[in-house]
Amino acid sequence: AARAGLALSASLALLLALVKWRRRQRPVREVLFFPSQLSCTEELLDEAAGAGGQARPCCCPLPRLDCSLTRLLRRLLSARCSLELCLFAISSPQLGSAIRILHNRGVRVRLVTDARNMALRGSQIALLRQAGIQVRHDQESGYMHHKFAIVDRRMLITGSLNWTTQAIQTNRENVLVLEDAEYVKPFLDEFERIWEEYNPKNYTSFPQKQ
Amino acid sequence: AARAGLALSASLALLLALVKWRRRQRPVREVLFFPSQLSCTEELLDEAAGAGGQARPCCCPLPRLDCSLTRLLRRLLSARCSLELCLFAISSPQLGSAIRILHNRGVRVRLVTDARNMALRGSQIALLRQAGIQVRHDQESGYMHHKFAIVDRRMLITGSLNWTTQAIQTNRENVLVLEDAEYVKPFLDEFERIWEEYNPKNYTSFPQKQ
Repeated sequence: AARAGLALSASLALLLALVKWRRRQRPVREVLFFPSQLSCTEELLDEAAGAGGQARPCCCPLPRLDCSLTRLLRRLLSARCSLELCLFAISSPQLGSAIRILHNRGVRVRLVTDARNMALRGSQIALLRQAGIQVRHDQESGYMHHKFAIVDRRMLITGSLNWTTQAIQTNRENVLVLEDAEYVKPFLDEFERIWEEYNPKNYTSFPQKQ
Repeated sequence: AARAGLALSASLALLLALVKWRRRQRPVREVLFFPSQLSCTEELLDEAAGAGGQARPCCCPLPRLDCSLTRLLRRLLSARCSLELCLFAISSPQLGSAIRILHNRGVRVRLVTDARNMALRGSQIALLRQAGIQVRHDQESGYMHHKFAIVDRRMLITGSLNWTTQAIQTNRENVLVLEDAEYVKPFLDEFERIWEEYNPKNYTSFPQKQ
């Protein structure tokens, strides 16, 4: 009977350890809704840029809040190795800064965008290119309408949100943050497919959209 | 020793049953990319409408394929009780038909849309309203830019895809299908929040967008 008890306890201990391990392995699952509250993001971005103690105090009148925009920025800024971006439009100065900071930190950034949007006033594309970031665009009559990011080949950030100030501040939008490989892997494959297809070697002319 | 063996086997059987149960409980996780291949959807929709054996044979030249559009339609048509829709734009006749079929089958359909899009040529909104489906729209200067559906309060369908023929056939788009409560619950809450906010009692005038 003592041995039976011992075997049972051992099995239960194993089961508990398994449950605990599963919980630690639990992937990030987050949902962000927009419009976002307005928040000052200077400190967050300065810190990420490595300004550390010397971060200049911000004199803007905005409060410092934990809101959908700051959460999105933090997820993005968690990148250590790579960042793949597939963005229909990007005009948000905060999101543009975050991407440049990651590039300056040595993160390998690759960006795919829609040709029609990248020349619009307020687009961050020119600034990102000036910073040395690789940007490729479509040459199609349809839109490159994705709006997703992949952080360190591990975390997918995707949703309805275009990375524009208007969308962030005034639209009803959603963003999902996921670490499940079942979602991340197909998006990584889709990115690589598009990245190759939009290789400048394949550009035939400056795209003319209808 | 025999008892110890018995206890060990019982524990292992329990563990196996648990693993099996977890696998059966495994939520749907699917990613669809667009543009979709072109496929005839007549048979699929006729079958869902209950035409059964009397489904008229379709004479269109399109092949019958398993593609992103038919997969999206199948997920949608799996609804038995309720369907919540938050759609920036809907002009796809196939998706419009699927929604009407579900309504006719007794599924409780509620639809929220963006005021600016619903009056555009090709919008399905008038047809859906004529069929008796409840539709509410925003009154805001920003866009109601969500594009998600919730099936039976259990399955979330969301992504970059507007439910338009152009997006389905020509754009680069993504749609995620998820059953994890961590994602479904916040979207259900968001839907109910918007549904209440867009209650016609709160309409002040026909919306004027900039």
